[in-house]
Amino acid sequence: MPRYRLVIEYDGGAYVGWQWQDNGRSVQQAIEEAIVKFAGEHPRVQCSGRTDAGVHAVGQVAHVDLTRDWRTDTVRDAINAHLKLGGDRIAVVSAHLAPPAFDARHSALKRHYIYRILNRRSPAALDFGRAWHVPRPLDAAAMHAAAQTLLGNHDFSTFRASECQAASPIRTLDRLDVERIGDEIRIHAAARSFLHHQVRSMAGSLEQVGCGRWQTSDLRAALEARDRRRCGPMAPAQGLYFVSVDYPAELMLEK
Amino acid sequence: MPRYRLVIEYDGGAYVGWQWQDNGRSVQQAIEEAIVKFAGEHPRVQCSGRTDAGVHAVGQVAHVDLTRDWRTDTVRDAINAHLKLGGDRIAVVSAHLAPPAFDARHSALKRHYIYRILNRRSPAALDFGRAWHVPRPLDAAAMHAAAQTLLGNHDFSTFRASECQAASPIRTLDRLDVERIGDEIRIHAAARSFLHHQVRSMAGSLEQVGCGRWQTSDLRAALEARDRRRCGPMAPAQGLYFVSVDYPAELMLEK
Repeated sequence: MPRYRLVIEYDGGAYVGWQWQDNGRSVQQAIEEAIVKFAGEHPRVQCSGRTDAGVHAVGQVAHVDLTRDWRTDTVRDAINAHLKLGGDRIAVVSAHLAPPAFDARHSALKRHYIYRILNRRSPAALDFGRAWHVPRPLDAAAMHAAAQTLLGNHDFSTFRASECQAASPIRTLDRLDVERIGDEIRIHAAARSFLHHQVRSMAGSLEQVGCGRWQTSDLRAALEARDRRRCGPMAPAQGLYFVSVDYPAELMLEK
Repeated sequence: MPRYRLVIEYDGGAYVGWQWQDNGRSVQQAIEEAIVKFAGEHPRVQCSGRTDAGVHAVGQVAHVDLTRDWRTDTVRDAINAHLKLGGDRIAVVSAHLAPPAFDARHSALKRHYIYRILNRRSPAALDFGRAWHVPRPLDAAAMHAAAQTLLGNHDFSTFRASECQAASPIRTLDRLDVERIGDEIRIHAAARSFLHHQVRSMAGSLEQVGCGRWQTSDLRAALEARDRRRCGPMAPAQGLYFVSVDYPAELMLEK
């Protein structure tokens, strides 16, 4: 029973999130239905990191077991063909064979996210639903400097959704870089794993630094308080992109 | 009666094009209606270059005359507020005062376009409607080399829509660069003015070069034939972006 690793891109604005929900179409549902149509099987597609409604992905990773030994190109093209027929805004960018030990979620060494802020007076037109529009001027350098205080191993309770189901609020944040590219501010975040809403909570708090309401010391104090009420207003889902996942080389087969 | 110069961004997929049409909402209509609502006036908004249905803009330029002496920030914000209320995917990025001699169309020295091709096997998800999806591999270096043969002053009849209303098919093409950025191929085109469908016609012909069906000599022969039937299949509207316009410095006032 071959296992396949899929790299998946989607426009989160069209879905209730990765996971099956009663209240609308999910990314997982769309992909699993496409697999039923091409392979006649009903396997579960397991992703690396569940995304909320509105959150986008350029490199979500998932694994799926199929009974038949399909060519990887066929798996990719057949799922895409059915997604396209269904009008879905989801694409399987690549499909590879994976060893049985590969698990999209549990094998992950590091997850990479980008948060995009459109920082200009006028609203988004082309980037509508693709970035957080913040009209007041933000100081990206101040945001970057403050962000460095969150790096390392901490109790991130302040930046954790109340409904987060993780056993522990301790995480190790490896990267939190903030850069300005014209009218856009990009926050790059990387860690082995994140708490629920952690990136959006940090982005919202960094915005408080960017507009001058918070200093680096305020961000640090918020972290150390380990208190959700000390978090800045959470940044909206539409600015968040699941970018990529790192795995051990021995779990990456060639084809 | 002050004249304002507007820089405008829009998602062309939501409109029948720049110009008023009977068959749907146009960008011009949306902006003119927003001006009616905020200023109580019915002025004509004149753009630098009309775009077809589906063509996007990040820096379309237009001018408009208003009776009252509004602050430029007010003009920008008030139009944007009404566009947003109407659910439009249009934003006035900036508004400036312009001298009476400024004409968005006739004062233009150079117009810049980008054509985006998503060149990978899997379809566009996030870039759906924002790029031309070409699944077969394209050789961007070959496209760039061939493109250079179109530079300069030529009769571009081959790359001109049959319904083009320009008095002459002669144009001077200043730039036609092709670059690959990962899965994306970008064609950069610049000229004082373009014929109707010229950029999309050139992009479609360059795709023929990229996939190996045409050589540089075929592209040159197509140009020299001055015959619309020798053009490659025209590239679709959704990959085209109106990027910016150059004007004489003396027509650019400070505020």
